[in-house]
Amino acid sequence: MNAYQKANSKLYLSVRNRLTRIFQPINIVPKDAKRKNQEILSRSQRLMLELGIIRQANPGSFHFLPLGVRALDKLLHIVDEEMLKIGAQKVIFPTLTHSKLWKSTGRLEDFGSELFTLTDRHNQMYILSPTHEEAVSDLIASVSQISYKEFPLKLYQTTNKYRDEIKPRFGLMRGRQFLMKDLYSFDIDLESAKHTYDEVCDCYNAIFTKIGVPFHKVMGSVGAMGGSLSHEYHYKADIGEDQLMRCSDCGLHANIDLVGRDKCSNCNSTNVTISNGIEVGHTFLLGDKYSKALKANYLNEKKKPISLQMGSYGLGLSRILAAVVEVLSQEEEMRWPLALAPYTAIIIPPKEGSKEEEAGYHLTERVCSLLETLPCLENNILLDDRIHFTIGRRIIDARRVGYPFIIVIGSKCMEQMPLFELVDLRRNTSINLNEEQLLLYFKEMFNNVHAS
Amino acid sequence: MNAYQKANSKLYLSVRNRLTRIFQPINIVPKDAKRKNQEILSRSQRLMLELGIIRQANPGSFHFLPLGVRALDKLLHIVDEEMLKIGAQKVIFPTLTHSKLWKSTGRLEDFGSELFTLTDRHNQMYILSPTHEEAVSDLIASVSQISYKEFPLKLYQTTNKYRDEIKPRFGLMRGRQFLMKDLYSFDIDLESAKHTYDEVCDCYNAIFTKIGVPFHKVMGSVGAMGGSLSHEYHYKADIGEDQLMRCSDCGLHANIDLVGRDKCSNCNSTNVTISNGIEVGHTFLLGDKYSKALKANYLNEKKKPISLQMGSYGLGLSRILAAVVEVLSQEEEMRWPLALAPYTAIIIPPKEGSKEEEAGYHLTERVCSLLETLPCLENNILLDDRIHFTIGRRIIDARRVGYPFIIVIGSKCMEQMPLFELVDLRRNTSINLNEEQLLLYFKEMFNNVHAS
Repeated sequence: MNAYQKANSKLYLSVRNRLTRIFQPINIVPKDAKRKNQEILSRSQRLMLELGIIRQANPGSFHFLPLGVRALDKLLHIVDEEMLKIGAQKVIFPTLTHSKLWKSTGRLEDFGSELFTLTDRHNQMYILSPTHEEAVSDLIASVSQISYKEFPLKLYQTTNKYRDEIKPRFGLMRGRQFLMKDLYSFDIDLESAKHTYDEVCDCYNAIFTKIGVPFHKVMGSVGAMGGSLSHEYHYKADIGEDQLMRCSDCGLHANIDLVGRDKCSNCNSTNVTISNGIEVGHTFLLGDKYSKALKANYLNEKKKPISLQMGSYGLGLSRILAAVVEVLSQEEEMRWPLALAPYTAIIIPPKEGSKEEEAGYHLTERVCSLLETLPCLENNILLDDRIHFTIGRRIIDARRVGYPFIIVIGSKCMEQMPLFELVDLRRNTSINLNEEQLLLYFKEMFNNVHAS
Repeated sequence: MNAYQKANSKLYLSVRNRLTRIFQPINIVPKDAKRKNQEILSRSQRLMLELGIIRQANPGSFHFLPLGVRALDKLLHIVDEEMLKIGAQKVIFPTLTHSKLWKSTGRLEDFGSELFTLTDRHNQMYILSPTHEEAVSDLIASVSQISYKEFPLKLYQTTNKYRDEIKPRFGLMRGRQFLMKDLYSFDIDLESAKHTYDEVCDCYNAIFTKIGVPFHKVMGSVGAMGGSLSHEYHYKADIGEDQLMRCSDCGLHANIDLVGRDKCSNCNSTNVTISNGIEVGHTFLLGDKYSKALKANYLNEKKKPISLQMGSYGLGLSRILAAVVEVLSQEEEMRWPLALAPYTAIIIPPKEGSKEEEAGYHLTERVCSLLETLPCLENNILLDDRIHFTIGRRIIDARRVGYPFIIVIGSKCMEQMPLFELVDLRRNTSINLNEEQLLLYFKEMFNNVHAS
């Protein structure tokens, strides 16, 4: 009995990630189906629900299933890497913030019924925080005698936030629970606060560049958040709920909330275009609105307490996932940026009972372990071991989930020099490669990603 | 102007982790101080608060500061590694669970005022989930036609849970928000469910072994959770709120809730000892209590729906952090297991203005970058760049925070063959080593950790 025969009952046990071991309930929703509670459906939402990336729990509230968690973990990793580079420090603030803090800044009233609130057994009212300016200011205020030497201080967290949206919609795009990266900066004066602000904006540019989907940084309105300066990061998409104006003459790019839509507020040109954007990041130079209300001070050289100058910077992490899928996907096929795809490549071995089965089996195990040795593919290869399905059926599924690379081990694996079919969804190409060429293909891709 | 002089204004910029760049508000609390809301104080809570690991936000609710997040991240990493080994898949369930699910299992009433509840703008009542048996059962029930081939299914998450404790106490040990790793298993019959149960228990043994603090697995009572079999994982400590009975004759080790405290329920021996334990993990073989109530079924070979057999397995992650500090620490000095210490080693260079300053500066930069190349120390070395303090003062601080290794660059750095003083807090030793010996010391330690 050879290794193939031994393994035949439970195939491919040596391969780390096998599709049959992944909980991915596929659930085809008829196109004209009405959603629960009349939620409006976006393309990304429909595809992510149908293909088992997320699953609805309640209106505006979703389970992340294993493939969704993998994509999210990749995004979190990018964020942590870039935050480290600017010396931002990771913290975790509690979900529940005492309502008295929000009362003191006036936001308990401003947010009104958008806030989830609860009363504890001691009759204290808390909010499920949608953001943490009050909490972090109160934390800083609680530290006695912070010297000017401690600044700039940059604290961030990646935690769930909550908002009782009137109309949750578009899945993760506007949910009632969402994952946000929120960073708060503290500086001793406005000049250094502006310096920190620019540094964080550069960091956001780096994060969006790593994600790899074209983004737009535009001037934003400070709105109810307050402060003196604000920028927004957008992905352009028809379903975007913001409208962005770009002036073809002076280059001004801004949310129409800030500048209007008919002519450029900077150069008065009427040569402007309007497009829809999905807001995925927002930065605010806040000044002392929160630090003054909550007494977040530092001690200057004469030991006199002075209000700190704050910045607040948000990235909608769960929204980014939905937005990149929205922007890149086709009507019936999801697409992911290479950096966030749940798996970079999927391997499809021959169907059981086919004449290629045994040769394909050995080849598959070898090529899986070879590819796993490449840093760009380590723990990023998935094997579609549903060998009771034809190769064709499995290719269709792989295209729908949008794994960037599909490696098919088909009839050409029987040749003297076995060939693999490599489908590159990003380039929309399909080529036959031998083992050596296949490895080289990925090595070069990896080099290019790192060089870019 | 040499490199040292150039760098003198902002020293040690080449070193990745510098203490002056870490937000760690030290806050000495008088021993007889009354806590807010009469919270009871444990040693770990006092030390973690005083030394800037956590900070209180509200009763039973804490900010994790950067050093606390680092320790927590190490614990999460261990958990993820071991979960992967048993094929458990990571998911994220929403914090808010609709109250109707908890009503259907009777637990809305059972938990009563321990639950945080809220009502949304549509007058729907939700709970801030303390655990997710209902949510996961509802998820499985929502997937139509799961075949028996899909099982065993193991889904886990590491998310915040909530409980409106009457008396929050001991800091992270019994908070109102806590981080939990909760795993839910589904099997097609009780026999395979028991097999999965044993596999997860083995996995928990591996996790606690990696954490490295002596633990005890004891028989537990199923209590309100239900089911037929339960085990608890404990750290023994005086402040532990559970009492554990061990029979010296037959070896039975169990929570007294299950077996009483006067004689062994297995062999009737009265040769028993009682000790206090902090419960940090709990496993339950649940049977079909939840799956039946919420219709979590699979289809057998005849396509007939059958209730799934569940297991539920919790690890109190934030509680583990507090418990290991509680067990290991001295009255005024924190101690961490090597695996969870915020940094493995701290380096203390000479005081500014001392005769060793310049020689020590170059030596410090070199030894930092050398040690960073060791896998066991990569991104795990902290430099105490508060060079305005004496070496002695900084050693006291380092001992209080409990970095397992303290490397002092003192007067012996001026010798022909410079020597470092290495304080090993775990062995309570202090030895002088040259550069080569220092590297070897850590290399050997790393090998031992991996061999054990």
